[in-house]
Amino acid sequence: MFYILSVGPIPSHIAFVMDGNRRYAKKQKLVAGAGHGGGLFALMSMLKNCYELGVGLVTVYAFSIDNFKRWPQEVQSVMELMLEKIEGMELRVYFIGNLKLLSEPIRLAAERAMEATANNSKVVLSIRMAYTSTNEILIAAQKSCKEEWEEVRGSRTSGFGCSLIGLEDTELCPNEQIDLVDLEKHMYMSVAPDPHIIIHTSGETRLSNFLLWQSSHMQLYSPSELWPEIGFWHLVWSVLNFQQNYFYLNRIRKQI
Amino acid sequence: MFYILSVGPIPSHIAFVMDGNRRYAKKQKLVAGAGHGGGLFALMSMLKNCYELGVGLVTVYAFSIDNFKRWPQEVQSVMELMLEKIEGMELRVYFIGNLKLLSEPIRLAAERAMEATANNSKVVLSIRMAYTSTNEILIAAQKSCKEEWEEVRGSRTSGFGCSLIGLEDTELCPNEQIDLVDLEKHMYMSVAPDPHIIIHTSGETRLSNFLLWQSSHMQLYSPSELWPEIGFWHLVWSVLNFQQNYFYLNRIRKQI
Repeated sequence: MFYILSVGPIPSHIAFVMDGNRRYAKKQKLVAGAGHGGGLFALMSMLKNCYELGVGLVTVYAFSIDNFKRWPQEVQSVMELMLEKIEGMELRVYFIGNLKLLSEPIRLAAERAMEATANNSKVVLSIRMAYTSTNEILIAAQKSCKEEWEEVRGSRTSGFGCSLIGLEDTELCPNEQIDLVDLEKHMYMSVAPDPHIIIHTSGETRLSNFLLWQSSHMQLYSPSELWPEIGFWHLVWSVLNFQQNYFYLNRIRKQI
Repeated sequence: MFYILSVGPIPSHIAFVMDGNRRYAKKQKLVAGAGHGGGLFALMSMLKNCYELGVGLVTVYAFSIDNFKRWPQEVQSVMELMLEKIEGMELRVYFIGNLKLLSEPIRLAAERAMEATANNSKVVLSIRMAYTSTNEILIAAQKSCKEEWEEVRGSRTSGFGCSLIGLEDTELCPNEQIDLVDLEKHMYMSVAPDPHIIIHTSGETRLSNFLLWQSSHMQLYSPSELWPEIGFWHLVWSVLNFQQNYFYLNRIRKQI
């Protein structure tokens, strides 16, 4: 199957919102929190599939900022389990988000995992935790603004730049503005391609504050299965859709 | 049908990406550009349906910045037709986007339409044209940054604020930063609720750089029909889905 798919274009970045672990536990009459074990298993085999297909970057939405407030114990135990599993795989791992919200031992373990996997290059796994997209955009705006501020101050003190054209000290001259490139470069992993596909399980057709800035041209795929139930065929289906769309858009472009 | 729906919660804001007009013309073997006539008819009856259902705000993605470059003639004729139709309806209309890209007569006509409908209050129609969402976010970041800059300069010149705690002139103190509220208030129509539903016709599961900042919690609905083929039942279906999800989320919230 992968052989057939690999004749067409392969998305270089796929993102997953791993929704439905708690519901899965309930459905299977497991104790609360046990759904995450199944979820982790699903993640590991999905990563293996992505690697075999040639997808270079996988981003997963592990925990929103909300999760940390609501179920700190659960987050702790899933993180421990995840770090244990990751060690055995040839992945390069990034933990991305407001990591200050993690408990001290977990944060240190996450940092160790990033260091330990820094030389792996097969697949890059970006784990967003304590992350929201609006927060990412806000931080990018703050950094861009600070940078602009420092540049303006620097050029005015040295008598260069816009101070020469007679503007008041409180005015900004046209090139003293944040531009798209500034914002873009301050997004997390800005050098990586935007996701081609976002898979949100549990039939959710929402983005849930995940990769909004990067979502302009992604295809959203919402299988009705809960995250621990996701498998090989969901990936195949979403990539087939991506390829169909890719050829369609190319045909349209040629017609213009 | 609307009576049944109105027992449940009604989304206060629905957005449409009106995709498929050109393909519709091709499918029906009409001359290029004629699909937009059908598209406009679909929009008018959709607006009527939304009004009857009690949806207060409808946002449509009329033309991206790209459209203006690729088919200026087509944009011109659709705009003329649209302005003519709008005059007869009790809508309050906003044209939102980089309106400087419009030709002079069209821009003036758009401004006239906004003024002429300013006292209508039944349904608000927000028409995004020459619009992209990343551009909207960028402008909000620029405005927030400028505002912050002016505040900082003001407080330092008057000897108040952060200048008192001994920071260098190039440093920003913690409260001299853009925050979420700043960004938010500089988005177009920031006082309006985020869309509950985005309907993207032609089976497109992408956001196409439309309302990204506002998309955290919307439900994306992608009927396979082309825009001129959309009708009453697509609206009913998307609202039913919204209501189902609304009750589900409320149940989840109560369980926590």
